[in-house]
Amino acid sequence: MAKFLGKIEFPCTIELGRGLEGAITNLTKIGYVDGQAGALFYRGYSIEDLCEHGTYEEVAYLLIFGELPTAAQLTDFQGKLRKAGELPEPLVPLIQAKPKDAHPMNVLQSAVAALACCDPDSDKVTQHVSDPAAALPIETEVAIRVLARTRTVAAAIARARQGKPLLQPRSDLDFTGNYLYMMNGKPPDDVTRRVMDVCLILQADHGMNSSTFTAMVVHSSLSDLYSTIAAAIGSLRGPLHGGANEAALADIQSIGGPQNVKPWLEKRLIEGQKIIGFGHRVYKAYDPRAKILKKHAEVLCREKGFDSLYQTAAAVEDQVGAAMKAAGRQIYPNVDFYSGLVYHALGFPTPLFPVIFAVARTAGWLARVLEYLPENRIFRPRAVYTGPTDRTYVPIDQR
Amino acid sequence: MAKFLGKIEFPCTIELGRGLEGAITNLTKIGYVDGQAGALFYRGYSIEDLCEHGTYEEVAYLLIFGELPTAAQLTDFQGKLRKAGELPEPLVPLIQAKPKDAHPMNVLQSAVAALACCDPDSDKVTQHVSDPAAALPIETEVAIRVLARTRTVAAAIARARQGKPLLQPRSDLDFTGNYLYMMNGKPPDDVTRRVMDVCLILQADHGMNSSTFTAMVVHSSLSDLYSTIAAAIGSLRGPLHGGANEAALADIQSIGGPQNVKPWLEKRLIEGQKIIGFGHRVYKAYDPRAKILKKHAEVLCREKGFDSLYQTAAAVEDQVGAAMKAAGRQIYPNVDFYSGLVYHALGFPTPLFPVIFAVARTAGWLARVLEYLPENRIFRPRAVYTGPTDRTYVPIDQR
Repeated sequence: MAKFLGKIEFPCTIELGRGLEGAITNLTKIGYVDGQAGALFYRGYSIEDLCEHGTYEEVAYLLIFGELPTAAQLTDFQGKLRKAGELPEPLVPLIQAKPKDAHPMNVLQSAVAALACCDPDSDKVTQHVSDPAAALPIETEVAIRVLARTRTVAAAIARARQGKPLLQPRSDLDFTGNYLYMMNGKPPDDVTRRVMDVCLILQADHGMNSSTFTAMVVHSSLSDLYSTIAAAIGSLRGPLHGGANEAALADIQSIGGPQNVKPWLEKRLIEGQKIIGFGHRVYKAYDPRAKILKKHAEVLCREKGFDSLYQTAAAVEDQVGAAMKAAGRQIYPNVDFYSGLVYHALGFPTPLFPVIFAVARTAGWLARVLEYLPENRIFRPRAVYTGPTDRTYVPIDQR
Repeated sequence: MAKFLGKIEFPCTIELGRGLEGAITNLTKIGYVDGQAGALFYRGYSIEDLCEHGTYEEVAYLLIFGELPTAAQLTDFQGKLRKAGELPEPLVPLIQAKPKDAHPMNVLQSAVAALACCDPDSDKVTQHVSDPAAALPIETEVAIRVLARTRTVAAAIARARQGKPLLQPRSDLDFTGNYLYMMNGKPPDDVTRRVMDVCLILQADHGMNSSTFTAMVVHSSLSDLYSTIAAAIGSLRGPLHGGANEAALADIQSIGGPQNVKPWLEKRLIEGQKIIGFGHRVYKAYDPRAKILKKHAEVLCREKGFDSLYQTAAAVEDQVGAAMKAAGRQIYPNVDFYSGLVYHALGFPTPLFPVIFAVARTAGWLARVLEYLPENRIFRPRAVYTGPTDRTYVPIDQR
């Protein structure tokens, strides 16, 4: 992939595979996945650097605006997130009325779509109107609201599942602190807040994946940002996209301890079954997100009483790696392998895993659709028709 | 385009433009747009033939199953649509709580996403599970429910906007009859039902447009069909896609009568303004849908007291055509030019136009995602990164 880095002009000749493999949507300065090297960059900063030093708020700002904020810019951004982050009154019954066993991603999609009805400016985005007197283009103002409110409704959905009253954000907490507070009813401890912040940073953007692509396609008809993010949530809901960490966790839990990994793995290999959470369509080296998460998972699991589960996961990684090496192959865990473990240790029920993913990824979705807006062209590939064109209607009694 | 007809294998070499122009999503037997000839086929039947002889129910069946139904198959399909078409109880407050000035497409997206929570089988689609003992694969059963329920919530949204109580479908009416009944509170007269049926047939499918493509992308992560259709609705909501007939109608209304067309057009041409409702990215000949609609618009407008409006539109078509011919070009009205007029004469407020479009297109969206399912590969094109990869985090007080 790197061979295309920065060198392309439309129209261009490409080799196209199934699933639009090889097709190019646009040029971007937002994020870069180097699959060969196992590296991920947001706006030119390595993911390791951002996870080590940054916060999710800074990273969301970076993705949307292109630069890390100054102290004044960050204060302004935080103020907007806080103000916009209140749960609109009409959303309360909508979220509370959903059956408790409803998939939270369906509820999230429905709620985010409904948020459009509570924002008088939502439609202005569709007309790409900016007020020259305003500090920010209106579409960017709306994007900040979408980011804050998607987080708030995600937290409300988690609360409603527990049958507890919905909460509003607190003015003394940041984006991540408020997300945890509104889910759990109490502000997070430092370890929890920090690990959650890292998780959100790690999932904030990842190239032209299927949900990001969905957002790009939907917004390219100049649809509003709420419709756009709701559509992307619909994509992320699919088990091939946002559901793998649930399955990886279920596997690790089913093993029952590090001592059982050997027979479990032997059985899997004999039966030719896939080991969930290993390998990646893009990363040929170690997934950099998995490396960061593994470190946090170790500390967190020790702290929260899930040490045996972490040791089981680590043993799976070691023994899968060794078995593959013996077969002349290299294989590494991907982000899903450790993120499910981390979310479990943080106390989240598995159906909420993709919801957290959606909250994090909203920053990347928004950044990418806003970047495409000034050069917008509606996405319209084509299907190749292979059927007949010469059939004639036959009355129903003669069929 | 026709040169690719039936002759392609992946991987293939293509010329790619912006907006994925030239990219090929898949091979299909569902529909074919022949832009050069101005022809549209569903499953090999011409749109003229289907509009002349068929009903929307038959056409929806044809798109999804590939063949026109026998009498027994149609009876079974109608029974399923009727049974599934009841408005689920939890949707009533969701639809009634929305502000009256909310864009009905946002409400529709939210409501369709919420429908997933009322269907215990919605998730089975995501696992592509079929019961061998069942007459139909479960995903097709769910698709029929999605089709019927999207129609029902669309009607409920129209009712709620008028502040009237929501209605359930009647067992003596078909799909289109019930749609009109649930919107208007009384069964339609024959002319209305017939014209509406033709409108729904005409908008049921149209190649790989942006909303259909959205549905394909979302479902390719094996997301459920409600999430998928909700996402497509988000795309159709964009003014570049589902909004053009509103604008075309507003133009025709603003002229004030056929006698005013000449000065209106002269002013437009002098100012170099676009004439909305003319020309099409795919059709280089007369849009076959516009031709059919024009005929119905003439009869309907005469019947319903909008004859002057129809005469104005017809005069715009004639004079725009003559002006372009004088300039050595050929230009024709597209489907949007006459569909807004027809919907207006049928008594629908303009914000509902894209909702009707969505109800019709749901058949095409479903047919195309179900066709892709057995050969599913997640859509994952890529963006080309043109930014730096060597930036280093700077503490906030040093920025």
